[in-house]
Amino acid sequence: MKKLINHVDTVLAESLDGFAAAHADIVTLGPARHFVRRRTLKPGKVALISGGGSGHEPLHAGFVGHGMLDAACPGQIFTSPTPDQMLAAAEAVHTGAGVLFIVKNYSGDMMNFQMAAEMLDKENATVVINDDVAVENSTYTTGRRGVAGTLLVERIVGAAAELGQGLAELKAVGDAVNRCTASMGVALSSCTVPAAGQPTFQIAADEMEMGVGIHGEPGRRRVKMTSAQDIAAEMIGNVLKDLSLKRGQEVILLVNGFGGTPLMELYVMVNAARLLLESSGIRVARYLAGSYVTSLEMAGCSVTVCAADASMLSMWDAPLHTPALRWGM
Amino acid sequence: MKKLINHVDTVLAESLDGFAAAHADIVTLGPARHFVRRRTLKPGKVALISGGGSGHEPLHAGFVGHGMLDAACPGQIFTSPTPDQMLAAAEAVHTGAGVLFIVKNYSGDMMNFQMAAEMLDKENATVVINDDVAVENSTYTTGRRGVAGTLLVERIVGAAAELGQGLAELKAVGDAVNRCTASMGVALSSCTVPAAGQPTFQIAADEMEMGVGIHGEPGRRRVKMTSAQDIAAEMIGNVLKDLSLKRGQEVILLVNGFGGTPLMELYVMVNAARLLLESSGIRVARYLAGSYVTSLEMAGCSVTVCAADASMLSMWDAPLHTPALRWGM
Repeated sequence: MKKLINHVDTVLAESLDGFAAAHADIVTLGPARHFVRRRTLKPGKVALISGGGSGHEPLHAGFVGHGMLDAACPGQIFTSPTPDQMLAAAEAVHTGAGVLFIVKNYSGDMMNFQMAAEMLDKENATVVINDDVAVENSTYTTGRRGVAGTLLVERIVGAAAELGQGLAELKAVGDAVNRCTASMGVALSSCTVPAAGQPTFQIAADEMEMGVGIHGEPGRRRVKMTSAQDIAAEMIGNVLKDLSLKRGQEVILLVNGFGGTPLMELYVMVNAARLLLESSGIRVARYLAGSYVTSLEMAGCSVTVCAADASMLSMWDAPLHTPALRWGM
Repeated sequence: MKKLINHVDTVLAESLDGFAAAHADIVTLGPARHFVRRRTLKPGKVALISGGGSGHEPLHAGFVGHGMLDAACPGQIFTSPTPDQMLAAAEAVHTGAGVLFIVKNYSGDMMNFQMAAEMLDKENATVVINDDVAVENSTYTTGRRGVAGTLLVERIVGAAAELGQGLAELKAVGDAVNRCTASMGVALSSCTVPAAGQPTFQIAADEMEMGVGIHGEPGRRRVKMTSAQDIAAEMIGNVLKDLSLKRGQEVILLVNGFGGTPLMELYVMVNAARLLLESSGIRVARYLAGSYVTSLEMAGCSVTVCAADASMLSMWDAPLHTPALRWGM
């Protein structure tokens, strides 16, 4: 295992320290590095809190800031944060208008966020994200997994929260974005969890894992490597089948790298995906391409399509100022 | 070779098409994809043009936009663009105030940009970037190589151009930023050029290439893998030796991933680098961490330190709106 680290036990702490130093204008670390929080809170705004296992950076801490999250709780790599992290984050960033938890559908995260929600003595609600159409149930999940669609939920709900919408409204917006968002991924290589010291899975030089999860967990099937065009066709095909969109529908397209795939290839996938969508009569109204919901250094990517309505598109475009995504301010 | 591509001969064209579609609000492609240009030009502003071999994305096309470049000429992967690309770009984006070419010091780029400069019938000047302190002369270079410091030159000169500075002033600003900027890199793995189909170099499971160039070309020496702390110490040590900074100096720190290294590790390097700089009495005034000047999917990173004066810091902070970097607008 070759990694730019000092020790497997200190990777997360040192990475968080570097992150907090680099983005000190936006974020600060909570006590014992239990959470990353917005430096400046907005009184009367519903507090948005997410989190999950680390190793998916910039998700979630990179999305803390104006127009997105108020706090993110980082677990150890590919391990859920604990309920006390979520409770501490909620205590630190709530301003009296309630707390909305945004949770990717993994058994560990679901259990721990639910426990935190029950223990929290503030009004709260939870949005569960399950955008991955590849598999029903999986290694770490009952039901579908939550993957890169999380970025869209956090962004659109984050913008709505900034405009002063209440807890029930925001919960409804989050659920609505989740319902109209679908993703599917493919891996060309495994990642290596530092504490494990060896690749999560073995894959032949001419194979790929179609429908892979963001921890390198199995997808639909192991298949022979094929062209970007064919890969995009399978992923977009499944995503469109799930969303059953009408011709003329506008969408946000996210082509998300898993960490080890260069931008040049991601844009080849953007090109393939947009041509496929256009040929189905779908108009890509907004694009995002980059490595945003990663699996350490895994090679591969996912495509996410969000059938955003006019209000969601306007929330997408609203001012945003986080370490990983920034526009309009 | 496993890559998300359709054919080695069409990677660049398809990637550029995806890029142009995704960022159509900012850029447009020139005829025959000879260059990427800003969609909207600013009359009376000096035109800034860069370019070089592809495979370093988002450099340079990702830096076209307000506050940075007017055009970027993409060559084939790790191959200089041709003089007619630069000429076509200059004809397309100059608005009468002259043209400034920003060129990384590689023999092919130097020759071709010089030829374009001689053929161009508009007032023009050239800034040459040679920030890599690892080696004097190299596989593709006479003198030092131009690497991630290019981002700082393009950004700071870009902001100055936006403020209406003239060609001679901008050339002086660019040369000044280059003089006070130094970089050094390390590779943990090779990249694979699609047309070659196999890794550029072989490296053992316990080795790294210290001082590597951004094409995977050799650095100072092949050494045993060590800790992030030791790697940062060697790189920062060499960078500081080159810049000979006074205690109390403010700097911009760029920790740049080469494409295959996850953000989590880059922030571990940010943390190591900032502690080293602080212990030398250097204050990190601005941070940038991410994969911005890449070598396809090579694992590893570089550190760049720019001993920016107050004017450069103010240019760094000025409004910026490009596909890869955006702030203040």
